[in-house]
Amino acid sequence: MELSVKAAVNPTEDPNKVKAAVLNLVDMELTMVEENGQSYVVGVSHSLSSLSPLRKLIGKAGIARLAREVLRSSAVGDTIEIKLHKQAAFAGAVSFVSQDGESPMGPIIITITAVDPGKVIDWIAPPPRRLDGLHR
Amino acid sequence: MELSVKAAVNPTEDPNKVKAAVLNLVDMELTMVEENGQSYVVGVSHSLSSLSPLRKLIGKAGIARLAREVLRSSAVGDTIEIKLHKQAAFAGAVSFVSQDGESPMGPIIITITAVDPGKVIDWIAPPPRRLDGLHR
Repeated sequence: MELSVKAAVNPTEDPNKVKAAVLNLVDMELTMVEENGQSYVVGVSHSLSSLSPLRKLIGKAGIARLAREVLRSSAVGDTIEIKLHKQAAFAGAVSFVSQDGESPMGPIIITITAVDPGKVIDWIAPPPRRLDGLHR
Repeated sequence: MELSVKAAVNPTEDPNKVKAAVLNLVDMELTMVEENGQSYVVGVSHSLSSLSPLRKLIGKAGIARLAREVLRSSAVGDTIEIKLHKQAAFAGAVSFVSQDGESPMGPIIITITAVDPGKVIDWIAPPPRRLDGLHR
């Protein structure tokens, strides 16, 4: 599997704050690149565990069900691309965005390519446990 | 006359870069304030000369005619409120925005209150000179 992250760094932004926002969601080495005069923070990883921070935030916020929906609807073939609110991420919160305009200065884009995207989704946002007919 | 400027400083922004963007348009002392958990760079002045940087940029870019239109359509009673693209301002360029979404992270808002807004407009963006029938 391959995992990549990308977030624009706009002129009035602090690159280290953008990095901090990204690192609240993913655990991987980040670098700065420039494309057509626009700076980006980018990172690549081959381990699903790099998404541990996002996974934990989703669990803590109790939004696994929402996250599963977003992840499923974002899957095309073997690729899942999700966009997260950069300013919310800086504050340690998960906020999915459906339109770039919803995240001032552009979203944090996480792209996951995997043979079995369903397994990736189950790991990031586990499905509700079955009760197996038992009362608890 | 009273002149005020206000620009949001979002979590991933560098307050000094936002100040630098604002200072490319206005020449006045700026301070940071917080309103409902949102930080802003703000400044107040009572001298039209505080708009000298904006005036010069408009002249240099040759967009006096456009600026006059924008300023006139932004005048309500004795008040003119204009919004400028924060990222463009950081680069030393004037870009008027009509919708907040056009300026990532919010625009720089300049509000001018004057007894005669027309004179203010003539100063910021002088009208084309009359040729008085002379050939040049």
